[in-house]
Amino acid sequence: MPHKPLDVLTIGNAIVDILAHADDSFIIEQNIVKGAMQLIDEERALALYKAMGPATVMSGGSAANTAAGIAGLGGKAGFIGKVRNDGLGNSFRHDLKALGISYTVAPAVDGPATARCFVLVTPDGERTMNTYLGASQNLSEDDIDPAVIGSAEVVYLEGYLWDPPAAKQAFRKAIKAARKAKSKVAFTLSDSFCVDRYREEFLGLIRHGDIDILFANTAELKSLYETSDELTAVQALKNEGVLGVVTRSEKGVYVVTREETRSFPAFPVESVVDTTGAGDLFAAGFLAALSKGLDMADAAGVGALAAAEVITHIGPRPQVNLLDLARQEGYRM
Amino acid sequence: MPHKPLDVLTIGNAIVDILAHADDSFIIEQNIVKGAMQLIDEERALALYKAMGPATVMSGGSAANTAAGIAGLGGKAGFIGKVRNDGLGNSFRHDLKALGISYTVAPAVDGPATARCFVLVTPDGERTMNTYLGASQNLSEDDIDPAVIGSAEVVYLEGYLWDPPAAKQAFRKAIKAARKAKSKVAFTLSDSFCVDRYREEFLGLIRHGDIDILFANTAELKSLYETSDELTAVQALKNEGVLGVVTRSEKGVYVVTREETRSFPAFPVESVVDTTGAGDLFAAGFLAALSKGLDMADAAGVGALAAAEVITHIGPRPQVNLLDLARQEGYRM
Repeated sequence: MPHKPLDVLTIGNAIVDILAHADDSFIIEQNIVKGAMQLIDEERALALYKAMGPATVMSGGSAANTAAGIAGLGGKAGFIGKVRNDGLGNSFRHDLKALGISYTVAPAVDGPATARCFVLVTPDGERTMNTYLGASQNLSEDDIDPAVIGSAEVVYLEGYLWDPPAAKQAFRKAIKAARKAKSKVAFTLSDSFCVDRYREEFLGLIRHGDIDILFANTAELKSLYETSDELTAVQALKNEGVLGVVTRSEKGVYVVTREETRSFPAFPVESVVDTTGAGDLFAAGFLAALSKGLDMADAAGVGALAAAEVITHIGPRPQVNLLDLARQEGYRM
Repeated sequence: MPHKPLDVLTIGNAIVDILAHADDSFIIEQNIVKGAMQLIDEERALALYKAMGPATVMSGGSAANTAAGIAGLGGKAGFIGKVRNDGLGNSFRHDLKALGISYTVAPAVDGPATARCFVLVTPDGERTMNTYLGASQNLSEDDIDPAVIGSAEVVYLEGYLWDPPAAKQAFRKAIKAARKAKSKVAFTLSDSFCVDRYREEFLGLIRHGDIDILFANTAELKSLYETSDELTAVQALKNEGVLGVVTRSEKGVYVVTREETRSFPAFPVESVVDTTGAGDLFAAGFLAALSKGLDMADAAGVGALAAAEVITHIGPRPQVNLLDLARQEGYRM
């Protein structure tokens, strides 16, 4: 079978990040759950922005960051998500196009503004996210073209898509089209609180055979299986019969199949500046390496490398040529 | 005489930076002078943005960066410059206010959009700037309140202000008000090509006794005195009778008076990521330290430290607490 035109098509909320440094005391004052993503309305968005420090504006969105990483590693990437035709939406579109990412979803011409995520980066490098979903909520089934879905070897969906009601339908339509076109389906659990909101639906997707590759960090996996014990959660994942990829921050990653659980190391980092995008870029490196025919150990290695790059600077997308970096480290990309 | 409410009031073009990495080949293809600032019109701005890579958006503007540095060092700073009431203008205002900088100039409600500078950062860390002046061109005499000028110990003006015709009048009015209120006047030459455009006027300001402190880098100073020899230029500056501060990149700085030329070292940096803001932050550190009563050697040291911080990351404003940094280095700020 000939290779499809796209290596990976990612689908998610189209969001611009507004990143600022903040002390832990600010997080407490503002009554925010540190390290998590929480949804906020427009009024709260305005109040929070007013209270926060000087900001850096960069395109973000979990699945879009993953597409950026794949493109940066020389892969052919596409993205589906919704912006408005406003300043931030134009920036978002520019940034994807500048990376050669296929992005054909028409921007909304009215309705809420382009989604923004206020990312508060604490001195420990941890990021805490506050998302106003805006225009990204209006991603609908109409934005899912089965021909586009079928043009990708892997369709990658983010759990955050379950927050906007219409996007959920788009999500299901995409999975159906992917199955029909024999594209693989990858899914990231996104956030432990997101898992908490949609646990039964996420388990349903996994157990219905809709998912081939599942990405999760330890907190998300524990939330999925409602356990505080990592090994219990990994054992539960083992029984699902998917390819499970469990990121464990500086402890590295588990790659889990029904047959075995393999552990691979993280890539060492001198000092963590901002963890925004770490999981997104791990997934990018992992999928890009697999699509180039690398084995599981090398895929985990490229994932770790891409994640390490993104946490050494402010912002959720790579700032160096990831392909050069991977080649320097000896990966045959 | 009691200390005035503001340590430093800076006046300059109010600009948002749109920063992207670029190869040297891109600079050549686009027919841009590497390392310089050039003015572009709206059409060129659109074309350049379309051609350039994924971007980071951060408040910039030379004099505004200096105000940010002074505030970051615990100084009381103010800024005068003009934005529009659009998305970028709101970001610019937010970022100054979040730093506690006094900024009372009303945004334009119509006319051109907020100014933006497309900053291309090459692999050597050098930045090349392309500025669409937009709303910043409409800074006028009406925006200069003599009471605000007189409320600052030092009024700091950027040479770039001579590009928009109306701003030049604002500049002259500010100097007059500063003289009357016995505020010191500091002036930065901004850019060697800018000096080339306004050499006679800049020399006129210096020789008319309008300037107390002159900031320049080596290229700007050589342009001012139309010489290719650094020592000749420094000697010429010596004769002007101002306090001259000549930044020399990794070679450090000369502090020049009629009596003597003293040389102070740069602060060592492991790897230069982006030189945007280096001169602005040197001036910030130097002026903030002087306003706290530190001597010339320490002022040069704090300037070097602030410049070193800003060149180790993307963007023209500090990303760490500069006051903590200066204290860690033993400066009694």
